[in-house]
Amino acid sequence: MWLNPSNPQLNKNGELHHLLTLEGLPEAILWQILDTAKSFVGVTQREVKKVPLLRGKAVFNLFFEPSTRTRTTFEIAAKRLSADVINLAINQSSQSKGESVLDTVANLAAMQADMFIVRHAASGAPHLISRHVAPEIHIINAGDGRHAHPTQGLLDMFTIRHYKQDFSSLRVAIIGDILHSRVARSQIHALTTLGCPEIRVIGPKTLLPSHVEKLGVHVYHDMRNGLKDVDVVMMLRLQSERMQGALLPSAQEFYKYYGLTEDKLALARPDAIVLHPGPMNRGVEIDSSVADGGQSVILPQVTFGIGIRMAVMSILAGN
Amino acid sequence: MWLNPSNPQLNKNGELHHLLTLEGLPEAILWQILDTAKSFVGVTQREVKKVPLLRGKAVFNLFFEPSTRTRTTFEIAAKRLSADVINLAINQSSQSKGESVLDTVANLAAMQADMFIVRHAASGAPHLISRHVAPEIHIINAGDGRHAHPTQGLLDMFTIRHYKQDFSSLRVAIIGDILHSRVARSQIHALTTLGCPEIRVIGPKTLLPSHVEKLGVHVYHDMRNGLKDVDVVMMLRLQSERMQGALLPSAQEFYKYYGLTEDKLALARPDAIVLHPGPMNRGVEIDSSVADGGQSVILPQVTFGIGIRMAVMSILAGN
Amino acid sequence: MWLNPSNPQLNKNGELHHLLTLEGLPEAILWQILDTAKSFVGVTQREVKKVPLLRGKAVFNLFFEPSTRTRTTFEIAAKRLSADVINLAINQSSQSKGESVLDTVANLAAMQADMFIVRHAASGAPHLISRHVAPEIHIINAGDGRHAHPTQGLLDMFTIRHYKQDFSSLRVAIIGDILHSRVARSQIHALTTLGCPEIRVIGPKTLLPSHVEKLGVHVYHDMRNGLKDVDVVMMLRLQSERMQGALLPSAQEFYKYYGLTEDKLALARPDAIVLHPGPMNRGVEIDSSVADGGQSVILPQVTFGIGIRMAVMSILAGN
Repeated sequence: MWLNPSNPQLNKNGELHHLLTLEGLPEAILWQILDTAKSFVGVTQREVKKVPLLRGKAVFNLFFEPSTRTRTTFEIAAKRLSADVINLAINQSSQSKGESVLDTVANLAAMQADMFIVRHAASGAPHLISRHVAPEIHIINAGDGRHAHPTQGLLDMFTIRHYKQDFSSLRVAIIGDILHSRVARSQIHALTTLGCPEIRVIGPKTLLPSHVEKLGVHVYHDMRNGLKDVDVVMMLRLQSERMQGALLPSAQEFYKYYGLTEDKLALARPDAIVLHPGPMNRGVEIDSSVADGGQSVILPQVTFGIGIRMAVMSILAGN
Repeated sequence: MWLNPSNPQLNKNGELHHLLTLEGLPEAILWQILDTAKSFVGVTQREVKKVPLLRGKAVFNLFFEPSTRTRTTFEIAAKRLSADVINLAINQSSQSKGESVLDTVANLAAMQADMFIVRHAASGAPHLISRHVAPEIHIINAGDGRHAHPTQGLLDMFTIRHYKQDFSSLRVAIIGDILHSRVARSQIHALTTLGCPEIRVIGPKTLLPSHVEKLGVHVYHDMRNGLKDVDVVMMLRLQSERMQGALLPSAQEFYKYYGLTEDKLALARPDAIVLHPGPMNRGVEIDSSVADGGQSVILPQVTFGIGIRMAVMSILAGN
Repeated sequence: MWLNPSNPQLNKNGELHHLLTLEGLPEAILWQILDTAKSFVGVTQREVKKVPLLRGKAVFNLFFEPSTRTRTTFEIAAKRLSADVINLAINQSSQSKGESVLDTVANLAAMQADMFIVRHAASGAPHLISRHVAPEIHIINAGDGRHAHPTQGLLDMFTIRHYKQDFSSLRVAIIGDILHSRVARSQIHALTTLGCPEIRVIGPKTLLPSHVEKLGVHVYHDMRNGLKDVDVVMMLRLQSERMQGALLPSAQEFYKYYGLTEDKLALARPDAIVLHPGPMNRGVEIDSSVADGGQSVILPQVTFGIGIRMAVMSILAGN
């Protein structure tokens, strides 16, 4: 096998070949992505925002689950690299004709695709696809089930580094529905690898995975205790499905205990920054005064996300 | 504030910064757009129809209301200017996740968008957005509720100028559902600004706005009287919703009184031209023999519309 | 009329102007397309897969019937030729506004389109459109009703030629639902024109057109007899609609008699190749061991299909 058996994301030379998860990704590769992204964030502020690194390459946005926002970030990033982008929302046509995901992908690959951006409701779908495509094709996981959302995790790391420079003395809190969040999983893996000494997860028992401590995080059920003296506040989106389910009494109740308000944020360090992966539920997990306030870095996250996706695509295309 | 307080479409230098409505747009800017469009209509007839004026710029087609036709004209125009175009049909994904229009736009803007083409069912939505985006972003209204459809109005003016050269001695009739028409509103404002001495509106009382005379137009309920000696006949599309509603007895009835037939058109000047914004309801507001006849300039309108949209985008990008 | 009256696909010089059907297409043009495609298959294997042959041209994917797969092949092919591609799924917007196909096409043509790729559920729709567009516009049929799917037929011919070099001594079997298949019709016309001496069609009586022998093919109802000593096995997709209808007892029954299994394939020549237009119904018309086996050329068909579509577009654009 041409891929690294101990880490299916890397090639034989230990270089990034697919981006499937931040779990087990070597620290050097994380830094490489963050450094490369920095140069692209500069590109996107120039008058002409295009570079020819992916000219003639075909990037397929393969979305088995709709997400206008995530699809758009990858589309913009690929176009700024001069790639040809094909958007495929796979729920109707081929799938309704009873074709399997692997047959769909094999067919698209035979069109000489260079890269697939895969979003799928099933955890592990991008891994499965990566094991079946030709060696010259690269897979980027754009969110799979509850498993991982690595480019989101990376842009969060970029944002933290941008404002805090260094991970080695940070106290970071991740708040909300940890149990169902692929974002939280990606964040915890990346923070750990980058040397963050203290990661706290804050949420009600019903929304925390059992044995979450094994990931090396500290668990808080009381948000006021958990926020004390943190440098970084990472809010999670509360899926509306959860609010209707049995896991939560109500959105109002959640907001009371775990919504980020100005008075709760005051318990964090005065220079603490607030992140959110979007889209926000204002008045559920975050108050508008905080979302739009001086400590919020939620919109810069989006900007940095384009740079991160350009970095990942250009690194993959070069390996 | 960096925008001109007396006209939020203009910057401090009085140049066009957003295109939201033709109401209040200075005459000089109207002529600038019409003149610029003329050079682009030439471009679209060349072998290679591309110019690099928007290379590296990101144009977002932000359609909160579907319109394949209008979206396509903007997409084609932007691609001929070498922009990167992102199409977003916002009804499912983000909006169904409960995010507000302003949060959606703020997020897209953070991806370093340069221009938003906005279509929305609510009157005023593009204005609202224009007040909340960063100063380097330009908004073009592609139709908002009953309020305005400025690029349609501009391409109508381009068409009239192309065939009649000069507005200063024209008699123009606008016919049909004036009440619900954003197109009619844009036409009346532009014609007035460009010096058209006589604008007539023709329609049943139920489809005319009350006090429409205040716009400086002459009102006719009898189409044969209204068409007498006009130089330009501007038909409006009858929305099928109206036909089912209480405002009209039936499509047949409407056609009898307000459908443009050859015998009614014969009352206009022999060199009168016929415009329609499309899509046409043949046999409702217009007879096929007129739509496809020698006085119809309906298809040239579409061609000129690409030039107008290229002109607006390139002017905005330059200011 | 500027088109050739005896063959509406050709211009006065006998060159290809539209690609509507393979029926009646001169042999020299078939070879021209196959030869041109060969050079493009080389292009798609280069590092930078783009050529500037259609730069500044506007190619409209006009899909009145959804087909993600076919639309994608044309989109990729057009982008590799550097065209601007506009995707239009016409079922909602304009059509629901009651506009006719010809009005829709006339409008898009007025936007200075250069080429329309047309997919429509009604047989003959691309012909109808080709008769009404301006002479500088080219139409490619991407599948119309039960009538024709010429680029699929061409890529099948390319594939056969690639593996068998020469048509003049081939025995070819086409298997399955011949009655409803536009693909089978295109294949039979092309094979005949290219000099294939023996074409067999194999299927149950209910899925064969009456008088199919008039096309010069041999009819078999028993698959084991029909496959004996053939060089090329062309499977057809069984539409799931048929399985629910009265024409077939069940998918299981069909598979038993007409599904391509290893033991049935063993009756063909040992170097026989297996084709399928996709998407496959594994376990209905083809067994997975055959679909993924050493004689299957199903994925190369897809790759060659991009080259064929690039060839057709570049030939049309040059004529």
